[in-house]
Amino acid sequence: MTDEQQIRALVATWMTATAAGDVDRVLELMDEDIVFLGPGRPMMRGRDAFANASRSMEGKVRFEGVSDIQEIKVFGDWAFIWNQLTVTTHPADGGQPTRRSGPVLSVLRKKDGRWAIYRDANMITAER
Amino acid sequence: MTDEQQIRALVATWMTATAAGDVDRVLELMDEDIVFLGPGRPMMRGRDAFANASRSMEGKVRFEGVSDIQEIKVFGDWAFIWNQLTVTTHPADGGQPTRRSGPVLSVLRKKDGRWAIYRDANMITAER
Repeated sequence: MTDEQQIRALVATWMTATAAGDVDRVLELMDEDIVFLGPGRPMMRGRDAFANASRSMEGKVRFEGVSDIQEIKVFGDWAFIWNQLTVTTHPADGGQPTRRSGPVLSVLRKKDGRWAIYRDANMITAER
Repeated sequence: MTDEQQIRALVATWMTATAAGDVDRVLELMDEDIVFLGPGRPMMRGRDAFANASRSMEGKVRFEGVSDIQEIKVFGDWAFIWNQLTVTTHPADGGQPTRRSGPVLSVLRKKDGRWAIYRDANMITAER
């Protein structure tokens, strides 16, 4: 697979693993020092922080995401990807699902032959 | 100057040119095909689109920005920068200034020996 194909596969795996609630699989797709950035919230740094946040929501919600890749550029062992993302959140108590959408700009790093998300700027907001 | 120093100088110039309302100078710091991404708004593509948007606000507002650079990484002719940005908007009619702050993740490209912003994920939101 080319680097671009590997990055597309990473995004597809992220989506299916997230939908399946498979946190361990999602964690494998992140650099240990990942930073999540977003509007109106503090930055979240590190794979462990993501793991804790995800596990605190286990059994409470299910996420279903659709990613529409706009652009991928690879520079050796680094790359960026621009996605248009839609996430539907299904509360486990049967409450009304909510939809958020918007762009995501991510920087990826290749380490030991495997791509992983390194910086993630997630700009999804509630659909109105 | 090293690439990192050139990128820091670009950010400093962006801030002073924006504060001075010098749209032409800001445009020189952008790739022709720049894409601006943000939460809750359509993407804006191209230097010309930025120029039009800026000129439509001429004389109406003055922007004052403070950029706190968190990280710069350079990969040959490409780079990314993560900023913590605070923007104060001063209405020309003497109205109350407003402050927005948050992270910005940008991808830069070096072309003909000069760095320029290529993709910009701006996550600043109103301070509360």
